[in-house]
Amino acid sequence: MIKHLTITTPGQGLLEFTDKLNAVVREANVQEGLCTLFVQHTSASLLIQENADPAVKRDLEQWFEHLVPEDDTLYTHRNEGPDDMPGHIRSALTATHLAIPISGGRLALGTWQGVFLWEHKRKGSARRIVVHIGA
Amino acid sequence: MIKHLTITTPGQGLLEFTDKLNAVVREANVQEGLCTLFVQHTSASLLIQENADPAVKRDLEQWFEHLVPEDDTLYTHRNEGPDDMPGHIRSALTATHLAIPISGGRLALGTWQGVFLWEHKRKGSARRIVVHIGA
Amino acid sequence: MIKHLTITTPGQGLLEFTDKLNAVVREANVQEGLCTLFVQHTSASLLIQENADPAVKRDLEQWFEHLVPEDDTLYTHRNEGPDDMPGHIRSALTATHLAIPISGGRLALGTWQGVFLWEHKRKGSARRIVVHIGA
Repeated sequence: MIKHLTITTPGQGLLEFTDKLNAVVREANVQEGLCTLFVQHTSASLLIQENADPAVKRDLEQWFEHLVPEDDTLYTHRNEGPDDMPGHIRSALTATHLAIPISGGRLALGTWQGVFLWEHKRKGSARRIVVHIGA
Repeated sequence: MIKHLTITTPGQGLLEFTDKLNAVVREANVQEGLCTLFVQHTSASLLIQENADPAVKRDLEQWFEHLVPEDDTLYTHRNEGPDDMPGHIRSALTATHLAIPISGGRLALGTWQGVFLWEHKRKGSARRIVVHIGA
Repeated sequence: MIKHLTITTPGQGLLEFTDKLNAVVREANVQEGLCTLFVQHTSASLLIQENADPAVKRDLEQWFEHLVPEDDTLYTHRNEGPDDMPGHIRSALTATHLAIPISGGRLALGTWQGVFLWEHKRKGSARRIVVHIGA
């Protein structure tokens, strides 16, 4: 079964959408299976991370900003501004897709795990995620 | 079909568990399909790498220790000590889930590929992996 | 259903093979499902990235060459030359497998997304990719 999720991002950063994904899984009414998420963009990516302490999210964002800075003179692709190429690289380092088993009708996430969309553009937008739920 | 694997880690580093996974796949008795692994933690991750020369494992561990050092002053999240935030970042750079096709009743791994759990905490623990096997 | 793809690489770098993968999916004749790719090597990896501007590909390649240089004195594993260990690390940072939903008989890729094989060895070779297509 294929479902579609649109997540509207307010700007750069990690945005948790575990609740919205849980709602899709509940609606699918599958007791045991596999939920696969696929983001249809190359300047936004997916990540499973701790959702208890907000400092984890901030530290992740800052560490990636240091590793892949906006002002690196190496970039030649700047069509959409200084956040263009860093977004592609940060996407390459994280994930375009995730798969999470479904058990007892629910995502088998660990106690502290949340599902995040990572917006890499300064100006957020409506990001499309395709969700596949299989047996 | 959902199976559960618990891997007990002795401390930081890559720990191969291909044999344990092979046993789960044999027991499932699926001739052709897909095996998906999901680790229910954000301070441990999954990786497929060469398992022939142990130097590969050591070099990978050391390279990641340099890229994501424990004493980076950037981190504000230190609840569980200096290995806390580096573990989250190293997890983000590797994988929370893996999928490996099953062919002829066996994992379709390449000749030199092994499946590893990467423990990012100094003090190891019992790590839970959910295994989904689909047709 | 399991299919096999062999991609012959001319040397280091990102090589798009979206067309070859599309042909495999068309042949499978599945209207809705999930396509999973698995590369059977640890010195080549998979990536979904923008395929419109060739500068993205070049910038990605150069950025990874800087992050994981060939002449790092840290490496002890050099069996197959200076491109050996950087290949393993660059593989660890990208992906050994990808999953893309199938909708309306086609891969649900975004407008600018292409599927790439990343050859990490100077001397290219015939790289084996196992493709699983499930419902």
